[in-house]
Amino acid sequence: MSYNLLKGKKGLIFGALNEHSIAWKVALQAVEQGAQIVLTNTPVSIRMGTIDQLAEQTGAVVIPADATSVADLEKLFDGAMEHFGGKFDFVLHSIGMSPNVRKGRTYDDLDYDFLTKTLDISAISFHKMIQVARQKDALNEWGSIVALSYIAAQRTLYGYNDMADAKALLESIARSFGYIYGREKHVRINTVSQSPTPTTAGSGVLGLNDLMDFADRMSPLGNATAEDCANYVLTLFSDLTRKVTMQNLFHDGGFSSMGMSRRAMQLYGKGLELEYRDISKH
Amino acid sequence: MSYNLLKGKKGLIFGALNEHSIAWKVALQAVEQGAQIVLTNTPVSIRMGTIDQLAEQTGAVVIPADATSVADLEKLFDGAMEHFGGKFDFVLHSIGMSPNVRKGRTYDDLDYDFLTKTLDISAISFHKMIQVARQKDALNEWGSIVALSYIAAQRTLYGYNDMADAKALLESIARSFGYIYGREKHVRINTVSQSPTPTTAGSGVLGLNDLMDFADRMSPLGNATAEDCANYVLTLFSDLTRKVTMQNLFHDGGFSSMGMSRRAMQLYGKGLELEYRDISKH
Amino acid sequence: MSYNLLKGKKGLIFGALNEHSIAWKVALQAVEQGAQIVLTNTPVSIRMGTIDQLAEQTGAVVIPADATSVADLEKLFDGAMEHFGGKFDFVLHSIGMSPNVRKGRTYDDLDYDFLTKTLDISAISFHKMIQVARQKDALNEWGSIVALSYIAAQRTLYGYNDMADAKALLESIARSFGYIYGREKHVRINTVSQSPTPTTAGSGVLGLNDLMDFADRMSPLGNATAEDCANYVLTLFSDLTRKVTMQNLFHDGGFSSMGMSRRAMQLYGKGLELEYRDISKH
Amino acid sequence: MSYNLLKGKKGLIFGALNEHSIAWKVALQAVEQGAQIVLTNTPVSIRMGTIDQLAEQTGAVVIPADATSVADLEKLFDGAMEHFGGKFDFVLHSIGMSPNVRKGRTYDDLDYDFLTKTLDISAISFHKMIQVARQKDALNEWGSIVALSYIAAQRTLYGYNDMADAKALLESIARSFGYIYGREKHVRINTVSQSPTPTTAGSGVLGLNDLMDFADRMSPLGNATAEDCANYVLTLFSDLTRKVTMQNLFHDGGFSSMGMSRRAMQLYGKGLELEYRDISKH
Repeated sequence: MSYNLLKGKKGLIFGALNEHSIAWKVALQAVEQGAQIVLTNTPVSIRMGTIDQLAEQTGAVVIPADATSVADLEKLFDGAMEHFGGKFDFVLHSIGMSPNVRKGRTYDDLDYDFLTKTLDISAISFHKMIQVARQKDALNEWGSIVALSYIAAQRTLYGYNDMADAKALLESIARSFGYIYGREKHVRINTVSQSPTPTTAGSGVLGLNDLMDFADRMSPLGNATAEDCANYVLTLFSDLTRKVTMQNLFHDGGFSSMGMSRRAMQLYGKGLELEYRDISKH
Repeated sequence: MSYNLLKGKKGLIFGALNEHSIAWKVALQAVEQGAQIVLTNTPVSIRMGTIDQLAEQTGAVVIPADATSVADLEKLFDGAMEHFGGKFDFVLHSIGMSPNVRKGRTYDDLDYDFLTKTLDISAISFHKMIQVARQKDALNEWGSIVALSYIAAQRTLYGYNDMADAKALLESIARSFGYIYGREKHVRINTVSQSPTPTTAGSGVLGLNDLMDFADRMSPLGNATAEDCANYVLTLFSDLTRKVTMQNLFHDGGFSSMGMSRRAMQLYGKGLELEYRDISKH
Repeated sequence: MSYNLLKGKKGLIFGALNEHSIAWKVALQAVEQGAQIVLTNTPVSIRMGTIDQLAEQTGAVVIPADATSVADLEKLFDGAMEHFGGKFDFVLHSIGMSPNVRKGRTYDDLDYDFLTKTLDISAISFHKMIQVARQKDALNEWGSIVALSYIAAQRTLYGYNDMADAKALLESIARSFGYIYGREKHVRINTVSQSPTPTTAGSGVLGLNDLMDFADRMSPLGNATAEDCANYVLTLFSDLTRKVTMQNLFHDGGFSSMGMSRRAMQLYGKGLELEYRDISKH
Repeated sequence: MSYNLLKGKKGLIFGALNEHSIAWKVALQAVEQGAQIVLTNTPVSIRMGTIDQLAEQTGAVVIPADATSVADLEKLFDGAMEHFGGKFDFVLHSIGMSPNVRKGRTYDDLDYDFLTKTLDISAISFHKMIQVARQKDALNEWGSIVALSYIAAQRTLYGYNDMADAKALLESIARSFGYIYGREKHVRINTVSQSPTPTTAGSGVLGLNDLMDFADRMSPLGNATAEDCANYVLTLFSDLTRKVTMQNLFHDGGFSSMGMSRRAMQLYGKGLELEYRDISKH
């Protein structure tokens, strides 16, 4: 539903691979709410995905950029400013990848070059894009920058591996840079800690289906979907949330504040029963 | 600016004493965003304040109720449902008062009857209104309940006294009831932890002016005003934040994530200089 | 094993009902570490339990007191000071009870008189004992006060009911009073957030056995036992932790920092399998 | 005072540069409590500092190692095991350095090679040493690993720069690896978030003296010293804290739980007065 909540606003969206991506939904809904957007992704992701289709649907241009490359980011921000005819208002960072996860290196057997890449792609890229934005003075006063995070930054989930550390770093960057960009230009920087979401990016994580079921039964409102997330991100880009900054905002149906729900416990109890039955057979 | 963000929604607002109140601003802006509202306050507060003026401005009715009285709350929710012709969508709790603060009892010399009252008025009233709402099935699916809180719930500020404990209790109630109301009716419950705000309620707190200056210089975006807060609360009442629940959301210009800002430190450094100058004279 | 860690120290211990109580273990081990102690509990608990046996074992006196009664607490602190021949060094608060839980009132149907009692017994009693201690100047400089808490203060566990809110209030009181008692007398105040423990007090909570199994499989080190907890509390009473105050310290085998462990997920996965098997039969 | 708290234990201590270092105090006190230790530092730090003096005092050997080099760490753990004649019990990580801070690069103008180094030295080194320890099975069951951190991991302090992000990463590594090492070998991993301390390492941070004064006046117990910290770390190496893991433990005189103290506010108020006096002159 359109409220024209982002009427007149312009923004740059990283990480829309395909229609399952949260960034994709944000792009669609930002435009529906009156915004103009520029899309970006790495050349590889552009080839693998279907971003051109999104660009067509949203009247956006696509500017390829490797978010770990400052040179690429400089061209990207120049290109976006040229396209918009000046400064713009919001940025979405929806980027994460762990070569350690991809190559099956467990957390107690990390490859440190891979770890450096995990951090560079999933967290430091956020610093780089903000530093470039600020040095080019690319954002309007009271602009809004959002990165997508996950509760693994606070609590360990087996199999999430070095992405947990990357998310902790990402959230710290939001605070550290939020202070500086806020005091100078009133630009706010936040992270949204989203429910586990069946995107292409998430699919490498071990045992994700069971984990998503657990999260869903733990959360009183169930897992937040990619569409839900896009709606929430819109509010953070809007003028109604101008004084929210340096926060990690849980958008997860209540999961982060749950210790144990009855629904999840019922299932766990079944597993327990089965376990004891199996044990008593022996 | 109206986005019709709350078009078709109906809500109940506690605690609009006068035009300085956050609840007052929420009422105004909710109506501007398309909502219908019912206002409520204690009979005493209604006499002391100017709520009738707000009611006129917003086309609202005023139903007096003491939020610590379950009987009053039952009449209030019945009255609101009758007025709206059925269920409604949102509730704002903006209530807090400490007889210990008022009577100058310090935290190491609390009167325990007063403490019971502080907790009843400032926190348990929140449980009571939710319990009544739920027992009367007064809220629509995906309704939204918000209470205003303060960072004293997490960090001690001298002079804030037993209101700190009341806010901690309030935030806990939001989580505890958020689980239950969420799983059953998808009603979400959150608290907004707002910057110190020059309302009538806040005026009893010791040294509030200096504290507000400190908070302002610590926060990269400055203190959030009552208007800012109302804007933010609107997003939480809207359909765009449906999966946010059981959260305490800092709306404070970044204060909660600050350890020390340059601006605040400069002033502190001046005080320090003066102190050492004074000492060296002796 | 005795390190004489509390040699020369004297302390007051609330809440040792029987040999399953954490307070019981703290008493035993404090004495083993060289401390002298005074034991206290309500007259009812003294009758129901076996505290006299503990007193004999530890050479302690027992002074009955209802921790919700300021008059009782005053007599207790006077009695303890008389017994010790002056000020003492540490206090343990291990008290919690919810009439709502006992009477089967669920959180959406609380009896508010019961809630007031839950808060008074489980949280405000902590304020009362500290206020009395301070007004009588009963504690030595760098004394240490500890209360036992539970993670329900931060995260909702179904069935834990209004005890969650009581624990949140308890932890807030530790912070609020920790500031005042710290700045004046260097007395530190902390809460220990302990694993679910099979004590008599915990036995009223719904589905506790399954929950304890879940917590155990979630925690890399397993649930902390009452003995473990006593050991940890000793360190907080010792001179080695003098600068730790106003903290809630998780003593839980890692549970509080876990999102999902492999062990717990394996069991959950079994329950899930069973669920889908049952569904597919229909 | 010796309690023989670490009697029979053996440990490895990183980062004792000179007598101001926290690691230095930990080494001294660990030995006083009955432990045997191995000291390590980078070759450069060994030359710059006075670690040989500490080795003599404590009967320790010094094995040089660059903690960012896995090869060096492997030799170090081999050497320590050889020296101890087998496995050992505890490890202290007290390492941090930011080339960006040293070279005066502000947070909005980071050099990314420097940032990579900051993270590698101050955080990833922690992962590397744990991974090496685990792969060599160097630690006894119920061993204890501690790293020193700072509240900048949670709250932004101007001038602390990319060290804040490094500390956030460090704390995340403690959680992530704490899960794995805990479930397998019951080795616990924690970080201690220490008051600002006048060590050589801290001296590069902008405005540290004023900040330390502020922290001291904010904290009810004042800043924790390096000696205090060493005492606290001993408890974490002892058998009394076996079920504490994956925690970030504030050892800061209460600072982390303070919003504003009267003492700090008095000084701030003086600065404020001066500011207004200056303004009114113009």
